[in-house]
Amino acid sequence: MSENQTQLSIADIKGFEVGVASAGLKSEGPDVALLKTNTPNACGHAVFTQNLVVAAPVEISRKRVKAATIKGVLVNSGNANCSTGEQGMKDALAASKRAATALDIDEANLLVCSTGIIGNMLDMQKLNLGIDMAAQELKTNGNADIASAILTTDTCSKEAHIRGAIDEVEFHIAGVAKGSGMIAPNMATMLAFICTDIAISHECLAGIVKYVTERTFNRITVDGDTSTNDTFAVLASGALGNELITDPSSPEAGSFAQALMSVASELAIAIIDDGEGATHRINIDVVGAKTEKDAKLAAKAIATSPLVKTAIAGGDPNWGRILAAAGRSGAKFDPAKVSISLQGSNVLKDGAPEELPEELASKMQERVVKMMVDLGAGNAEYYLWTCDLTKGYIEINAEYHT
Amino acid sequence: MSENQTQLSIADIKGFEVGVASAGLKSEGPDVALLKTNTPNACGHAVFTQNLVVAAPVEISRKRVKAATIKGVLVNSGNANCSTGEQGMKDALAASKRAATALDIDEANLLVCSTGIIGNMLDMQKLNLGIDMAAQELKTNGNADIASAILTTDTCSKEAHIRGAIDEVEFHIAGVAKGSGMIAPNMATMLAFICTDIAISHECLAGIVKYVTERTFNRITVDGDTSTNDTFAVLASGALGNELITDPSSPEAGSFAQALMSVASELAIAIIDDGEGATHRINIDVVGAKTEKDAKLAAKAIATSPLVKTAIAGGDPNWGRILAAAGRSGAKFDPAKVSISLQGSNVLKDGAPEELPEELASKMQERVVKMMVDLGAGNAEYYLWTCDLTKGYIEINAEYHT
Repeated sequence: MSENQTQLSIADIKGFEVGVASAGLKSEGPDVALLKTNTPNACGHAVFTQNLVVAAPVEISRKRVKAATIKGVLVNSGNANCSTGEQGMKDALAASKRAATALDIDEANLLVCSTGIIGNMLDMQKLNLGIDMAAQELKTNGNADIASAILTTDTCSKEAHIRGAIDEVEFHIAGVAKGSGMIAPNMATMLAFICTDIAISHECLAGIVKYVTERTFNRITVDGDTSTNDTFAVLASGALGNELITDPSSPEAGSFAQALMSVASELAIAIIDDGEGATHRINIDVVGAKTEKDAKLAAKAIATSPLVKTAIAGGDPNWGRILAAAGRSGAKFDPAKVSISLQGSNVLKDGAPEELPEELASKMQERVVKMMVDLGAGNAEYYLWTCDLTKGYIEINAEYHT
Repeated sequence: MSENQTQLSIADIKGFEVGVASAGLKSEGPDVALLKTNTPNACGHAVFTQNLVVAAPVEISRKRVKAATIKGVLVNSGNANCSTGEQGMKDALAASKRAATALDIDEANLLVCSTGIIGNMLDMQKLNLGIDMAAQELKTNGNADIASAILTTDTCSKEAHIRGAIDEVEFHIAGVAKGSGMIAPNMATMLAFICTDIAISHECLAGIVKYVTERTFNRITVDGDTSTNDTFAVLASGALGNELITDPSSPEAGSFAQALMSVASELAIAIIDDGEGATHRINIDVVGAKTEKDAKLAAKAIATSPLVKTAIAGGDPNWGRILAAAGRSGAKFDPAKVSISLQGSNVLKDGAPEELPEELASKMQERVVKMMVDLGAGNAEYYLWTCDLTKGYIEINAEYHT
């Protein structure tokens, strides 16, 4: 569905206002953003990290998403407001109140997000100033750089957009994301915000967000660690004026879900491609599993195996490490029936090594490595996107000091 | 129980014969070993990898351990005989037959072990020659270097011994181990063999081996990967002439179990200390858990977290990464009640950051890092020994090509 039309930013989506400010929470660049939709049909839904340890803003936002729809977002980078105790919670609530007032929306409809260093108290003077400045800068066009305002250890900003059609009327989706280590509690965490002008019911949107999350942001891993602050939110302004989508099985809901999946996939892959120290993206497809659970177990064990990840970093078509990772995953299969291909070349066929084609060595050097593991045990499948493990990852994470 | 008496090797234990040969399966050094005890009371037990993918010798040995007691071992390094299909199984059985004949013991009582490269056929001409040479070299003193014959990527050989006493009679235990990556299917896997002169029933020995394995070799992780060839065997010759130990709750069984635990711990720690690229050993103690299962979940997540391991490599007392790893582990606890100490200094107390003492920076550079995580949820505990993650690990595993 992607095409070469003008790049859309979140603020270009009808019914949205975005404001950004540089409040000094990071050493440079924008670090506070406000996002708002207040059209009559506006709704929004978010999903969060499943880590037991969560930051104060996630605690607040989770409760709000359960109780109401989301019409606005306050996000800051530079400080995750995590493990900051009662004071951290007070600070998050105070910031939320100030942002809701500035945006003129009900606090119950505001999502609050923080990303950055863990264990440090927020500088509330700076954040308050940032909220006020961002509110004054609210814009309805693409000049507001929310994509930069949410970055921490990322080496580049991450944006994606798409145009789709419902009943021949063009709809629009634009989103931003941040994330580099899947977690690095001192400096990272994953956030993504996607906005659309489509009119859709909260319930229908929530179902689609869950479906899309499971197939995009829940399919990426850099280092197997999940964050304390991960948040993915989708807001729909309804400004397109289409008939409100309420039936998740309708063609309209299907068109929207497909377009949202495309934007979310692009953002998820952008996170992997900016993975800490990554030199290769690895697309892992486990097929022929007895159950989807088995396929997922095998894919996760392979995707998080340091031995598999270092082999790919070294351009080594090491099927032994892939097979051994699947073997310890808990998935049920017969090793004598397993086939593995790398970059389209069979390296293991029915449990027996294949002669490696000459061109595989250079193909293993390509940026994207396609790995297919057929467990030969059934018809269930699961895919994951990950990256390799390099000295760059060690440098970023061992040689960075608090 | 350790003391400064003469080093004991396996061949020094009364009732054992050990033979070693250099058959050319590795580029240099000994690579085939035979071990045998054939006194009337001799017995032995072994435990194996839980990986679904196992090498042919593990398949054979597992069956034999279920059916009978173990009185001898054939082990080779340089080739793991894994993923070698039907021919690999035929080769393992042929080698087993030749070794049993040479040792003059029943094949049903022989353990066969291989370690080294995966996916390559054994060079049977070399292995057969090695078996014959090792049989000719059978010795009853410490000159037979079985410790070297089992090495692959290890940077040093690993031996441990102890002298204990039962009813004022001195007994003896000596053992060897190999392992560097917990797994590296191309070049590694963990093996350990421990011998004693004590007289003990097979059933009693089997129970003690299981108990000791769970608290030693099952408590170490280098990279979270488990091998296709892991084997740990304990053989008892009974040559000491003590009254046969048959009651696992007797003081004699207790004395032996304690001594075996000491030798197995020393070997397990030697593997961690030789972990691929390791610059620190990390002793992880999770206490205050609601259940032992919770403590184990948290300990495993912390021990395998690349972010925790790289932080320790960098001397960084990064409690945020430790807390976040525990948080994603599935263990149930209240983050506000968690306390964490590193090298004896509290870095997190009841969920709140502590001021770091000045001396901690230098203490974090020590070879052994002690990490205590109190979940504040109960009284259950679990410990694990692991190592840090460094550029050395990446070098060994990414820059090694098959």
